[in-house]
Amino acid sequence: MTIDLRLNPDRMLASFNQLASIGATGNGGVHRPALGEAHLAARKWLREEVERSGFEFRIDGAGNHSAFLACGPEGATTLLLGSHLDTVPNGGRFDGALGVIAALEVLKTMKENGIRLKVHLEAIDFTDEEGTLVGLLGSAALTGNLTPDLLQNPRGGRQNLVAGMQRAGLSDEGILSAKRPRESIAGYLELHIEQGKRLEQARIDIGIVSAIVGISSYQLSFVGRADHAGSTRMEDRLDASLGASAFALAARELVMRDFPNCVMNIGDMSFSPRAFNIVPAQVDVSLEFRAPNESDFEKLDSALLALAQAEAKRFGLELKSDFHGRHSPTPMSDSIQSAFVGACEVLRLSHTALVSGAGHDGQSFAGICPVGMIFVPSVDGTSHSPHEFTKWEDCVNGANVLLYAALSLGQ
Amino acid sequence: MTIDLRLNPDRMLASFNQLASIGATGNGGVHRPALGEAHLAARKWLREEVERSGFEFRIDGAGNHSAFLACGPEGATTLLLGSHLDTVPNGGRFDGALGVIAALEVLKTMKENGIRLKVHLEAIDFTDEEGTLVGLLGSAALTGNLTPDLLQNPRGGRQNLVAGMQRAGLSDEGILSAKRPRESIAGYLELHIEQGKRLEQARIDIGIVSAIVGISSYQLSFVGRADHAGSTRMEDRLDASLGASAFALAARELVMRDFPNCVMNIGDMSFSPRAFNIVPAQVDVSLEFRAPNESDFEKLDSALLALAQAEAKRFGLELKSDFHGRHSPTPMSDSIQSAFVGACEVLRLSHTALVSGAGHDGQSFAGICPVGMIFVPSVDGTSHSPHEFTKWEDCVNGANVLLYAALSLGQ
Repeated sequence: MTIDLRLNPDRMLASFNQLASIGATGNGGVHRPALGEAHLAARKWLREEVERSGFEFRIDGAGNHSAFLACGPEGATTLLLGSHLDTVPNGGRFDGALGVIAALEVLKTMKENGIRLKVHLEAIDFTDEEGTLVGLLGSAALTGNLTPDLLQNPRGGRQNLVAGMQRAGLSDEGILSAKRPRESIAGYLELHIEQGKRLEQARIDIGIVSAIVGISSYQLSFVGRADHAGSTRMEDRLDASLGASAFALAARELVMRDFPNCVMNIGDMSFSPRAFNIVPAQVDVSLEFRAPNESDFEKLDSALLALAQAEAKRFGLELKSDFHGRHSPTPMSDSIQSAFVGACEVLRLSHTALVSGAGHDGQSFAGICPVGMIFVPSVDGTSHSPHEFTKWEDCVNGANVLLYAALSLGQ
Repeated sequence: MTIDLRLNPDRMLASFNQLASIGATGNGGVHRPALGEAHLAARKWLREEVERSGFEFRIDGAGNHSAFLACGPEGATTLLLGSHLDTVPNGGRFDGALGVIAALEVLKTMKENGIRLKVHLEAIDFTDEEGTLVGLLGSAALTGNLTPDLLQNPRGGRQNLVAGMQRAGLSDEGILSAKRPRESIAGYLELHIEQGKRLEQARIDIGIVSAIVGISSYQLSFVGRADHAGSTRMEDRLDASLGASAFALAARELVMRDFPNCVMNIGDMSFSPRAFNIVPAQVDVSLEFRAPNESDFEKLDSALLALAQAEAKRFGLELKSDFHGRHSPTPMSDSIQSAFVGACEVLRLSHTALVSGAGHDGQSFAGICPVGMIFVPSVDGTSHSPHEFTKWEDCVNGANVLLYAALSLGQ
């Protein structure tokens, strides 16, 4: 391995800043929802940048944009490096964009150094990672994980998806045709900002993702009885708010005590009949929890439901649970994690293993090919916000780790 | 006192049943919202019943309907006995109706026995006690507690009030003109079903109300910070749901331990931004509490707000409180309570002092004249429901207590 190889931080910064100006909101953030005008403008810029840099530009039926570098022998598989150019509404300029710019800079560096590998390299921008329309749309299409059903009932509404497809010249059939043969893919690597402050707090340069968490959600309904809030004694009530409140507090304690690598959230409680002067008959609790591996995921599921049952019983309430769906945890490839560790050591960067609490395109590649992901520190852990910020030095460190991991995995 | 005087239970039952058929919902309940067609039909029936029974029928500008018995000397003051014929939507046939029918039966019994008192008697049906339109409308008008403002912004909406006034031939000016000189009123007595199960559980015949509770309400907002529910550690969150939940549990404990004669209720919690995957930034809590006297009312107010502040602080949250208004506690007259006790003893009925946790027309008479109220047991404490039920024997007991108290107070 050429241990003095480094990418060009100034060139990378120039590209990053050009991209950040597209859809800029004037307060440091960008607004580039998938397949909206600003997102399409960012893609147009990417295509021109790819072509200007002398790469083969590729686009598939799902609108995924790539720079292709044929640095491997004929018939070689392709190592994908990438992320996404779409943002949440009024998001930041690092989430997604950094991973695409870094991937392209890795390819530029490989190309100008004439490096030959056992694989080809492809820097890819996936369509609609954030889920304004579908979520992980481009990566799921590419890996064959997208179903026609999902396109008919997308989380952003079919009408918005159709409008976006029309703007981008895409179609349902085209999106579903983007599936690639799995034997053509050597692996997938992604650099992303951490969406949390663990690296910043521990003053560590690089987070090597060990897994992307599984996510499960339920609606739990605590059911009691409506009563006159003036004439019914406290002792005689079956107050649904008590079960819901006790569960909210106890679930947090449970996770912090017994599942320190997991998280849970109660994003909503909906009361009925919802009147100042009526004891709540029912409270519907929106519960979500995340775990980095199947074993904890299942144990946490059981523990939370048992806890809800116990808290309901304690206050004389009935519990109903309505399962809203789950995404399994996605472990990252051991060999790619080792390659990242090696790269950090060559580059003298501190590193630690981290779980990604947020979803990423890497999930789409689970079971298809080895997947790896690294994080760089995010100031205050802020993300999905105009205030999202990562020091450029950290961005460059991450991109160099990506470069060295690609070198190592491709040799 | 004529200690063998009793009212006519069969005649009273016949009247009660005729009234209960007006607006009957077919499941034992009645639907007679104030100034709706069924309520106006019930009032028409009352007017005819009053006239059939040989009483002077009176109606005032607020639509209050009365039977007047001039059993006192010329220029005597009037002792009012009454309740209301309106119901909550799909309510029961006892709430309000029993008090009006009993008051009229008391007057019938007085009249047929040729009893002379120091006061005149008036059996009155107050307009809109339940608050479909305004709440305590007729009694507040009669006592001069109604403001033009309240008629412009009634809780049921101005449009509904105007429609009801048109149906009943009432006007804003007429309602405000219903105020009587306070020196004309000797007192106000009311028989009502208990809206709770204390009498039933204790197997006591008569509840003598010592006070109608004061009611106060606030919106308390626990304010934290929205965060990504996947990538933010449990320890790093400012989760508004924790303050709200801890307050809900602790407020209940506080009231049960330190304010056993008070109640509190959290009828709603409203979360924002209200998403499964975002840590709640703000939870708005609808808090109501009730106390039987000013001293407890103020102490409870301070204790609950201090508790909310402490729970907010415990979880790193900010607390905002928005006062929604209060009704002061209304103590019942000692002399009238004594008259009720005397009546129960003559009639060999068990009795106990009770606080009314619900609001009643008697509140309008606070500071105007002596007020007294009695409750009879309600099966399972059910009220504001078609399942509301009181045994006829209990209804008759209550009416006889009303009779004897009127005799005693009028002599």
